[in-house]
Amino acid sequence: MRNIKLTIEYDGTLYSGWQTQNHLRLKGRSKSRKTIQSTIENVLNLILQEHVNLTASGRTDAGVHARAQTAHFKTRTKFSCSRIQFSLNSLLPRDIIISSVKDVSPDFHARFSAVSKWYRYTILTRTYSSAFFGNFVWRYPYPVDINKIKKEARFLVGTHDFKSFQTSGAHDGNTVRTVYKVEIIRDKDLIYIDIRANGFLYNMVRSIVGTLMDINRGKLKDMKSIVRAKDRKKAGITAPPQGLCLMKVYY
Amino acid sequence: MRNIKLTIEYDGTLYSGWQTQNHLRLKGRSKSRKTIQSTIENVLNLILQEHVNLTASGRTDAGVHARAQTAHFKTRTKFSCSRIQFSLNSLLPRDIIISSVKDVSPDFHARFSAVSKWYRYTILTRTYSSAFFGNFVWRYPYPVDINKIKKEARFLVGTHDFKSFQTSGAHDGNTVRTVYKVEIIRDKDLIYIDIRANGFLYNMVRSIVGTLMDINRGKLKDMKSIVRAKDRKKAGITAPPQGLCLMKVYY
Repeated sequence: MRNIKLTIEYDGTLYSGWQTQNHLRLKGRSKSRKTIQSTIENVLNLILQEHVNLTASGRTDAGVHARAQTAHFKTRTKFSCSRIQFSLNSLLPRDIIISSVKDVSPDFHARFSAVSKWYRYTILTRTYSSAFFGNFVWRYPYPVDINKIKKEARFLVGTHDFKSFQTSGAHDGNTVRTVYKVEIIRDKDLIYIDIRANGFLYNMVRSIVGTLMDINRGKLKDMKSIVRAKDRKKAGITAPPQGLCLMKVYY
Repeated sequence: MRNIKLTIEYDGTLYSGWQTQNHLRLKGRSKSRKTIQSTIENVLNLILQEHVNLTASGRTDAGVHARAQTAHFKTRTKFSCSRIQFSLNSLLPRDIIISSVKDVSPDFHARFSAVSKWYRYTILTRTYSSAFFGNFVWRYPYPVDINKIKKEARFLVGTHDFKSFQTSGAHDGNTVRTVYKVEIIRDKDLIYIDIRANGFLYNMVRSIVGTLMDINRGKLKDMKSIVRAKDRKKAGITAPPQGLCLMKVYY
């Protein structure tokens, strides 16, 4: 059996996420039942004429995007990687692109072999939307004190119990994660919040971003006490999904 | 009468251009008859309850985008500029955004008052498309010798007769234009070709870009002799519309 790693770029706007999550579907939050995973699996099955199971580095929610999601699958095919890539890109819809196909060692696992991930959250700070990237930003029509949120974001770096940033209802046993880096970059009307960590709790980036913006507006006081509280109720809102993008998975 | 200037951002993918051009429609090249101009005029008529004629800095073709197209119109309305902007953005489709509405002097004319324009052409140099900006780039799957095209592009700067870059069939009397600046920037897989001039002939940017890419691949020899020939047949292909974006109009 070969073990093949895919790197995948997708615009998540029209999908109910990497994989349909039942509790989300029940809440009626997903616009469609079409998932990134099932869309790629269907095309792979067609090309390889065998049943393939894709395993991603992790799920992404409805409306969340990826510059470089990774996934692996086992196959008996003799097709070359470049042929598989070409066939996938020919048959997949335009909003899913396979940027690389590689043979990897049999023990490579897209999720368990990952050592860290980089997410980017993008905020558009103006009162009107964008004709180009409306589906890729959170439009936030208030002034942003960039130095203030940079200062507060520093308290996230390091190994902490991030229970305050886990969506209520989700139950990850261990809520301790290590954040390696938080970088906040302003480029005209856009603000990029880049977070790299060894792992992320469910909705962690989005609730961190929502909390930073609540601190920005003075609705919440400081990040340090919110992290220490280990209580989701002390943190801020969950920023909307479309601003979130999985940028890279590190192995 | 007030004279109002609009600054407009649009994703031209779904439109047959700023204004339907009859000779294009006859050739069957436009996918839809919906134009940017008529879409905005219809909403303006609705908001202002009067018949408004929009005049742009110039037309853009089907599939061409704008970061900051400009247009003006005369009106008797008493609505404030910010109210007009808010109403327009509320009623316009998501791919057209009004980024500014300003009262200007009665003699301001979006086209005739313009002193120069900046166009950007974007090339994606990889074999597969992009999930995010497939509608905004020319995908060019060949290696690009960036120094070579930078060197050749230098011959465009200055006042020249650009007849070689005017679409055959178009008949602009005077084909002399002044190009102030050509800048070519590579950012990973993307190449931006920025051209600023006091005016552009029909399809001028797209045929300059096509010619540069033909020079890149060795199909054509040098820009200097092509400019001097004043003959469209000596120049290269016309690059596809979706890579083109009107970035700014200078007054």
